[in-house]
Amino acid sequence: MIKETEKYEVGQSLPWAEVLDSLLFNEDGLIPAIAQQFDSREILMMAWMNRQSLEETLQTGQVCYFSRSRQKLWRKGESSGQIQLLREMRLDCDGDTILLLVDQTGPACHTGRKSCFYNQVKDDRVSVIQAPLISPDILYRKNQ
Amino acid sequence: MIKETEKYEVGQSLPWAEVLDSLLFNEDGLIPAIAQQFDSREILMMAWMNRQSLEETLQTGQVCYFSRSRQKLWRKGESSGQIQLLREMRLDCDGDTILLLVDQTGPACHTGRKSCFYNQVKDDRVSVIQAPLISPDILYRKNQ
Repeated sequence: MIKETEKYEVGQSLPWAEVLDSLLFNEDGLIPAIAQQFDSREILMMAWMNRQSLEETLQTGQVCYFSRSRQKLWRKGESSGQIQLLREMRLDCDGDTILLLVDQTGPACHTGRKSCFYNQVKDDRVSVIQAPLISPDILYRKNQ
Repeated sequence: MIKETEKYEVGQSLPWAEVLDSLLFNEDGLIPAIAQQFDSREILMMAWMNRQSLEETLQTGQVCYFSRSRQKLWRKGESSGQIQLLREMRLDCDGDTILLLVDQTGPACHTGRKSCFYNQVKDDRVSVIQAPLISPDILYRKNQ
């Protein structure tokens, strides 16, 4: 259904409820979601959402993913305190990827780094290019 | 293996060949790749890469994906002429997502828009927020 917007002018719209029904969740009921810091435009992480986490995120304004490893809703920041406030949600042309423009409290990465994309591939090496903002030991202890 | 870098200082590195062997390709041999315009930091698209497309992208400096619908290598721009020059490749902390910092020629989206993420979810509507740079009819005709 989202394909209908391909030829839309700026400002034309469709009902979200109907688009939601037509999103291309994969065979596990999941859709990839990219989190980008709304002001610096840094890409923070990529994770997965199911229908419920998408709806909760829009309702609460606080990003909720679906954890594939734990097989349950993952309210970002529930153990670290480092939440993501939703500023804007976008969908791609195919309706198979979500873009979340967020305001990230502290680091997005479990290593304590702002972004999960801190490994750079260059000249046959993979090098770390970002230092932690805070030690993960402190990050996860302080909320337990 | 990429998890070894979690506690690395900035500048510490691993051999790419070994990291490549340990990347978390899914059951179809694919890994998601986010393309971001290197200077404006706009997110252009999300697509999938297999091992061969990853290696080709690094070798040629021009982004190559794997098309799930066509089940073959997809040299971005091969039909539209709108190529992506690779400026930098990054990996996330889990080794299951690629970030491509690129210089996109013209639009990244098949609709002629700069980015594929031109649909905004807001107030129970999905609205188009970006106009095409060029008509897709012209975009795809001119290289045939």
